[in-house]
Amino acid sequence: MTCAVYPGSFDPVTLGHLDIIERTAQIMDRVVVGVLINRKKTPLFSVEERVNMLKSVTAHLPNVEVKAFDGLTIDFARENGAKAIVRGLRAITDFEYELQLAQTNRVMAPEIDTLFLTTGLKYSYLSSSMVKEIAAYGGDISAFLAPEVARRVEEKMKLSQ
Amino acid sequence: MTCAVYPGSFDPVTLGHLDIIERTAQIMDRVVVGVLINRKKTPLFSVEERVNMLKSVTAHLPNVEVKAFDGLTIDFARENGAKAIVRGLRAITDFEYELQLAQTNRVMAPEIDTLFLTTGLKYSYLSSSMVKEIAAYGGDISAFLAPEVARRVEEKMKLSQ
Amino acid sequence: MTCAVYPGSFDPVTLGHLDIIERTAQIMDRVVVGVLINRKKTPLFSVEERVNMLKSVTAHLPNVEVKAFDGLTIDFARENGAKAIVRGLRAITDFEYELQLAQTNRVMAPEIDTLFLTTGLKYSYLSSSMVKEIAAYGGDISAFLAPEVARRVEEKMKLSQ
Amino acid sequence: MTCAVYPGSFDPVTLGHLDIIERTAQIMDRVVVGVLINRKKTPLFSVEERVNMLKSVTAHLPNVEVKAFDGLTIDFARENGAKAIVRGLRAITDFEYELQLAQTNRVMAPEIDTLFLTTGLKYSYLSSSMVKEIAAYGGDISAFLAPEVARRVEEKMKLSQ
Amino acid sequence: MTCAVYPGSFDPVTLGHLDIIERTAQIMDRVVVGVLINRKKTPLFSVEERVNMLKSVTAHLPNVEVKAFDGLTIDFARENGAKAIVRGLRAITDFEYELQLAQTNRVMAPEIDTLFLTTGLKYSYLSSSMVKEIAAYGGDISAFLAPEVARRVEEKMKLSQ
Amino acid sequence: MTCAVYPGSFDPVTLGHLDIIERTAQIMDRVVVGVLINRKKTPLFSVEERVNMLKSVTAHLPNVEVKAFDGLTIDFARENGAKAIVRGLRAITDFEYELQLAQTNRVMAPEIDTLFLTTGLKYSYLSSSMVKEIAAYGGDISAFLAPEVARRVEEKMKLSQ
Repeated sequence: MTCAVYPGSFDPVTLGHLDIIERTAQIMDRVVVGVLINRKKTPLFSVEERVNMLKSVTAHLPNVEVKAFDGLTIDFARENGAKAIVRGLRAITDFEYELQLAQTNRVMAPEIDTLFLTTGLKYSYLSSSMVKEIAAYGGDISAFLAPEVARRVEEKMKLSQ
Repeated sequence: MTCAVYPGSFDPVTLGHLDIIERTAQIMDRVVVGVLINRKKTPLFSVEERVNMLKSVTAHLPNVEVKAFDGLTIDFARENGAKAIVRGLRAITDFEYELQLAQTNRVMAPEIDTLFLTTGLKYSYLSSSMVKEIAAYGGDISAFLAPEVARRVEEKMKLSQ
Repeated sequence: MTCAVYPGSFDPVTLGHLDIIERTAQIMDRVVVGVLINRKKTPLFSVEERVNMLKSVTAHLPNVEVKAFDGLTIDFARENGAKAIVRGLRAITDFEYELQLAQTNRVMAPEIDTLFLTTGLKYSYLSSSMVKEIAAYGGDISAFLAPEVARRVEEKMKLSQ
Repeated sequence: MTCAVYPGSFDPVTLGHLDIIERTAQIMDRVVVGVLINRKKTPLFSVEERVNMLKSVTAHLPNVEVKAFDGLTIDFARENGAKAIVRGLRAITDFEYELQLAQTNRVMAPEIDTLFLTTGLKYSYLSSSMVKEIAAYGGDISAFLAPEVARRVEEKMKLSQ
Repeated sequence: MTCAVYPGSFDPVTLGHLDIIERTAQIMDRVVVGVLINRKKTPLFSVEERVNMLKSVTAHLPNVEVKAFDGLTIDFARENGAKAIVRGLRAITDFEYELQLAQTNRVMAPEIDTLFLTTGLKYSYLSSSMVKEIAAYGGDISAFLAPEVARRVEEKMKLSQ
Repeated sequence: MTCAVYPGSFDPVTLGHLDIIERTAQIMDRVVVGVLINRKKTPLFSVEERVNMLKSVTAHLPNVEVKAFDGLTIDFARENGAKAIVRGLRAITDFEYELQLAQTNRVMAPEIDTLFLTTGLKYSYLSSSMVKEIAAYGGDISAFLAPEVARRVEEKMKLSQ
């Protein structure tokens, strides 16, 4: 049985992330989405909120699980019996950083591979941080997020004003 | 059962290609290496020679097959029941072209995905054309190719002089 | 009155080119599309055919003209009284070459500027050569070209077999 | 009448920015330079100072206005009746980020386009932050800024020591 | 006598840095490694610690010196009578920033040149910050650093917990 | 004594090449410019003409020699007792190819290093092939080449018409 982990901050999950999850779920037998607990950054949503939103938007995918994790991605992959780490590629600057991560991970865990999927064209410009910036200025974010996620971002923005 | 095709010219297969094949064979249940019959280019090796060299260097991998193909990669994937096309990424310029191909293929065949693997660091500078150029000037190519492939490139070069 | 030229091979015009023409026509008072007569390359379509297809797909744009030209783009711009050369940007490798061209043109013709527009997301993967390659293998090109252009490419492909 | 906005931080305006403004003023009928009030960053110069320096160095350009703005660039463009947002391109990393912004803006405001101009060669290495870093270490910044802007940067640096 | 400076943060020195130092020492008569005292960032190691680790790992190279410096790199080069600044190139994003720095330095100090060496393949993915991140999560860093440097990083990490 | 080779086609030598030669001559004790006899391409100028033009424009540099060579650059470097190969970097696409060449050369000849210099800003857009294309259309090339080289290119162009 093939298994892959898909790690990220997902603060919040965008339609671009969902596109990658759906496509991975078609190729692999099992997909574990890993929500990174980054101690350094202050996210807009708590880990619980991010996990819950992901569970909600992936409810239609029976072979997808969502978990929070702390530490190295290769350890998260090992704990879940995954042979592969999945990452979405949008642009060149992504690619450079992702390549560096993949090579570092390979030196530390040669048995785990990194698989890259290109984000669908429609979502190739999307990033969680850009969505938050637009929402902060009252812009319309409904084209970038699932409806329930968009609603929760707008609620957060109202509270923080 | 997961199946992927790995298309290319393989003129000849390098240790970088072999690295990608071995890693894909660990992640997927079945891998079909597809040797492209490119009508426009004049290869150093015939399709038969390229297929045979690939079969020889992948003999230790039970879930890997080698086939020649003509036409579109998405048609080759469909004929082999593959959900994914595998491509190795070495560098930025690779990435741009591969991204363009992947997006075009996705428009034409939405059910087939493109998976990118990064070539191992040791082989990240390798290309078949650079190997042929070095061999043409009598340089040592043993660090770049499997022994039997290196021997056959050197034979070809002697014949063409 | 502002005027821009939009030079290219247009062999054939794609929906990506048309997107750039339509957007330029909204910003500038007058747009002259210039079909380059490249002596070195053998195009699929003659200059006359390329000009006619462009005229057909831009018939709804009153401030767009189509002309063939030979020689330097800056001379074509000068002859048409244009202050700007318009170019579409799809990807990084485009950008590098386009930047080099723009800087060279600026040294030779400081009074003419180069304006870059980014190709719409839907068309960001499109190139005339990729469309021709797909058509040569019998692939479906209707998502990439205007209907009459797609029909003419398919006719050409039948003749060349 | 064609109108474009040119948004930025301009902390402070460099000769590279001025080059873009002068070239845009030749192509468009009216140019509105927009000084972004970024709530997150602490600039070296206040918004008023940045607007005043820009007004001073563009005093010779009758079709150029300078305004401060807060919020989304597309809203600033709409308020000024502009069909286009102008951005200078210096390098690849610029290009990636700018492309992302342009595509996001296009989804939210399809009637407004982004025009890219390449910064003149002489100024292609210039950034406001590098100029400030050089000034902080007492380096000579007269080749990068208009004389009155250079003088004001040096005054600020003396005060902050 | 040819002399070059090699500036950096070296927080801490990696095997990639050491590779650049050893190769520069073979080409130039004298190499001065400059440890930057960056007032803005809080390094893991003090300047004295960073200088001492560098002296320790370069003890076998008779024509290499290690010094701390504050201010502009071109001033550090001038003080040491160096005609060249040496920088390692790993990837595209490095290259862009380095190119910008090199051109800025050339405008301010035309008599000093910047020489780029490409980091050896084995170390092309390495960065001090990635090593520190791995160590912070208890990952194995022995493949990336000289043994005594790895030991000191692990000590620091224990203290900071 | 430090020695470097600077290989290339130099068809013809541009002011950008000359900039790299002059700067290398200041850093290294001896520079050998190597004119590549490429059997595959048909150059505008014969090897003798290219060597003579280079000798003419470097006559003021006592530590620079010009030689023709055939075969691998690392063999040319060894024959001239050079520890380093010098290459000019203009842009990202250059960088990718150059990096690949440098890593390949390092595997075959670990004792020889590749040094990159960035081409001066004024010449960063320049390439021999773009100069020839401009000259073919009767454009002014005097800003890109030394006077005697420009004259010889114009003569060649007249002959080939």
